[in-house]
Amino acid sequence: MNNFVYHSPTKVYFGQGYESQIGALLKEHGFRKPLMVYGGGSIKRSGLYDTVTASLKDAGLTWAELPGVQPNPLLGLAKQGIALFRAEQCDVLLAVGGGSTIDTAKVIGLGVPYDGDVWDFWCGKADPKTGIPTVAILTIAAAGSETSESAVITNEDGMQKKGRNSIFNRPLFSILNPALTATLPAYQTACGAVDIMMHTLERYLTLPGEVELTDRIAESVLLTVRHWAPVAIAEPDNYEARAQLMWAGSLSHNDLTGCGHASVFINHKIGHELSATHDTAHGASLAIAFPAWAKYSYLYNVPRFAQYAVRVWGCEMDYQHPENTALAGIQATEDFFRSLGMPVRLSYIDVPESEIDLLANRITANGKLSFKSYVDCGTKEFTEILKLAK
Amino acid sequence: MNNFVYHSPTKVYFGQGYESQIGALLKEHGFRKPLMVYGGGSIKRSGLYDTVTASLKDAGLTWAELPGVQPNPLLGLAKQGIALFRAEQCDVLLAVGGGSTIDTAKVIGLGVPYDGDVWDFWCGKADPKTGIPTVAILTIAAAGSETSESAVITNEDGMQKKGRNSIFNRPLFSILNPALTATLPAYQTACGAVDIMMHTLERYLTLPGEVELTDRIAESVLLTVRHWAPVAIAEPDNYEARAQLMWAGSLSHNDLTGCGHASVFINHKIGHELSATHDTAHGASLAIAFPAWAKYSYLYNVPRFAQYAVRVWGCEMDYQHPENTALAGIQATEDFFRSLGMPVRLSYIDVPESEIDLLANRITANGKLSFKSYVDCGTKEFTEILKLAK
Repeated sequence: MNNFVYHSPTKVYFGQGYESQIGALLKEHGFRKPLMVYGGGSIKRSGLYDTVTASLKDAGLTWAELPGVQPNPLLGLAKQGIALFRAEQCDVLLAVGGGSTIDTAKVIGLGVPYDGDVWDFWCGKADPKTGIPTVAILTIAAAGSETSESAVITNEDGMQKKGRNSIFNRPLFSILNPALTATLPAYQTACGAVDIMMHTLERYLTLPGEVELTDRIAESVLLTVRHWAPVAIAEPDNYEARAQLMWAGSLSHNDLTGCGHASVFINHKIGHELSATHDTAHGASLAIAFPAWAKYSYLYNVPRFAQYAVRVWGCEMDYQHPENTALAGIQATEDFFRSLGMPVRLSYIDVPESEIDLLANRITANGKLSFKSYVDCGTKEFTEILKLAK
Repeated sequence: MNNFVYHSPTKVYFGQGYESQIGALLKEHGFRKPLMVYGGGSIKRSGLYDTVTASLKDAGLTWAELPGVQPNPLLGLAKQGIALFRAEQCDVLLAVGGGSTIDTAKVIGLGVPYDGDVWDFWCGKADPKTGIPTVAILTIAAAGSETSESAVITNEDGMQKKGRNSIFNRPLFSILNPALTATLPAYQTACGAVDIMMHTLERYLTLPGEVELTDRIAESVLLTVRHWAPVAIAEPDNYEARAQLMWAGSLSHNDLTGCGHASVFINHKIGHELSATHDTAHGASLAIAFPAWAKYSYLYNVPRFAQYAVRVWGCEMDYQHPENTALAGIQATEDFFRSLGMPVRLSYIDVPESEIDLLANRITANGKLSFKSYVDCGTKEFTEILKLAK
């Protein structure tokens, strides 16, 4: 087991009704004026906006608002948020939405106390020394941003989509009410399920692999999504299904599923480029990346892929030819993604083969990427991977 | 899934060598003078005392010391610690040891800022409003106190052993170096393994049970202990075995294994009385309590006990007679405890049958205990349970 540091201090209020306590909870923490960040009209249509603002009023709080966060959120809006936060003299960020909304709030949180361009933190020019706390009310089980230290943002200048980790990105507290996700369309539910699985798999399918406890926890997350994602899609207001997915989403990306071994996150690199160039939903982009990456990679790590196939997908172990078991697990994953209505090839989202070189070049714009014990990947390797996704 | 609040903010430094950074880490957090709490001579014999004090000196820190913590730690020593902390104007507690040492530090942490008798918090007279932070360097995988909100102490007045939960009990950070546990005797390693399993089982064998993700995580902890405890006993300096047990210990009691359903902790009530009256090691007392409690209880919850038997012990499911599977899982647990060298009956620790009434009366001194969906247990019920342990 490798040395590791684990620090996931976000307080989680999980279950029905906590969102109506948001005003009191913010007040209890000594805040007086949140900047409320949200997306389009969905929280207004669902009544969540009214619940939250009523709770803020009841607690005697005022607030400012930054609506308009889109999937694959943009740096420009976050910069508006930084200016607004300062002008309105807010003291906390209140993100009401999914990963894009929470990530936008996190970018604002790092940007407000920083004199330079907040992009500095994403392009590697500077390290954050402090941050304004973010609080989240989650509306989709997917990104895990409600407990993670990660924030992903797209800079419109060159459509660069990048993630940044920082302890200041961990929300102070998050409210997770599964009932708030009951109105999600099937496609978004499926995208979320894939994202949860991929946050886990990027930490699990690593070399050297085994850390028994961590692995079994990762498998627990995967088995839970395997079981409950189809239920949530078939019965959108099945509370238990929504709850299992929501808790799986938080645990998949709060670092628990990777304690003690390396992480890969190579599929996220591919996915981010697809999202940046084609505005593909994050989960969908990962559903395309994974089968290709896995088929390219499994021979480097047959025992690990075989374990995945047996423990998560119930494949029969082929002791004489474990590579067959490994492949069966990859196929089972692809079939599962497909059954959820996810695209699993570039052609499904109308990305022609002729674009593969461009994508491979974008991924490796800053040189080869080292994924620890897997092969270092340059343009050539990514081209080969992407060809498996055509 | 029931509503729950999950908050486990302790930062964990896991792996080799972190203990030599303790001075720098304390300084980084702005502390200037820890009260170092520890047990007998073992940390002096192992060299850990020297490593820690050298690190404190290197960081330019001074410190005070409270040695002498015993297993089943006593309130009197903690009260000395409170006085010492105040007199020496310390600003943080540094526990170097196992659960007893960390719990003693936690009691001091709640007591220092409190004007009344610190026992008030344990006997239910008062709720802590604040606390001095505790930092831990762990030397045994067992109690989970290094991340938990629990602190157990024994009041010499009537030998009352009681636990108290509080967010102020969560250590600020904990250093977990599995190599520090390599010198533990087999008996202590085994006691620790049982304690880890029981922290998990008290949250897992509950009614209503199923929360798939939580359950699978609990099973992950149990399977990990099942695999690695015998290895750690056979090969005391097997780092991987020590590491798996240590991380299992922290996750077993930081609340993760119980999210979304009730907890029982009835075996702990029995165990605490055995420890208070016979100074039985905590893990050993639980190894005696569990088989008896489980045999008394399984018929209230056959599906859950059967799931435990199949998933954790690999028992064959008897679909026609699931109660047989449930019993096989209990037997497998008892056999496992026995194989680790644990006592599994009262007679093994020389508690005669004639003492059962006294024990049952002590457990229920404040009236019947309600264990949610299991039967409420009064003197009659505890007598029946204890008879199964004779």
